[in-house]
Amino acid sequence: MNCSLCAKLAAPPAGEIVAEFATSIAFLGPWQYHTGYCVLVARPHVAELHHLDVAARHAFVDAACRLSGAIEAEFRPLKLNVESLGNQAPHLHWHLFPRRTDDPERLKAVWLALDRADRDLAERTRLEEGSIPRAEIVARLRDRLRTL
Amino acid sequence: MNCSLCAKLAAPPAGEIVAEFATSIAFLGPWQYHTGYCVLVARPHVAELHHLDVAARHAFVDAACRLSGAIEAEFRPLKLNVESLGNQAPHLHWHLFPRRTDDPERLKAVWLALDRADRDLAERTRLEEGSIPRAEIVARLRDRLRTL
Repeated sequence: MNCSLCAKLAAPPAGEIVAEFATSIAFLGPWQYHTGYCVLVARPHVAELHHLDVAARHAFVDAACRLSGAIEAEFRPLKLNVESLGNQAPHLHWHLFPRRTDDPERLKAVWLALDRADRDLAERTRLEEGSIPRAEIVARLRDRLRTL
Repeated sequence: MNCSLCAKLAAPPAGEIVAEFATSIAFLGPWQYHTGYCVLVARPHVAELHHLDVAARHAFVDAACRLSGAIEAEFRPLKLNVESLGNQAPHLHWHLFPRRTDDPERLKAVWLALDRADRDLAERTRLEEGSIPRAEIVARLRDRLRTL
């Protein structure tokens, strides 16, 4: 099958796991300039949300909403950007990008900056490194999900 | 309130309406290079999906899935890109971008090209004009939704 997300689900990196739901796993994403950025990966290998049956679809979306609520409560972003692309890995996953109030590019999609990071190491480092250590972000989201 | 999407819901442009659901209205979007691109606008003014109650959330997502199925069946895109941003209009709406198999930028988010369109009139025209007239796209999606 050779799907990078199926491989990740089969051996999830423990330090990246934010939450394990019935139908999905939430991982901390690489771009922690957007503090709390998570990627919610569906357990079944389907390309699109509408390829899941209704019960699995609702379970996936309800998990995304729990996670969104935890990110919002913990980090108070200006806005969430929720994106399901899969152009490079066609296995259902949602990016949950909390937008910073102090991001000078907050009116635009995050992909413009992330595209620059492909060509510019300093930009990559800036966008990967947040203002809070990754382990602390994971711990705070896990705690928040427990009490939500 | 001064919300551009509330204003659009109050006086929906008839020619742009693809479907009217209980919790949302689907409009044909401006960028028909991505043939069948729709924007699904929630009727209630909320910023985020998780701000809807569970019944409204499921209704919104089920409508999005019906619409996704119709776009997929009618236009056979390589992949759907479903995006909920709201950076400029913080009123819940999902962009449904069908990705073309012949798009040289199909591995990237659509926003890179759309950002160029802000500065380049020829690029704007290319991305607005599809290979199929807008009225025909609307008619085909409406038909497909009736029989799905």
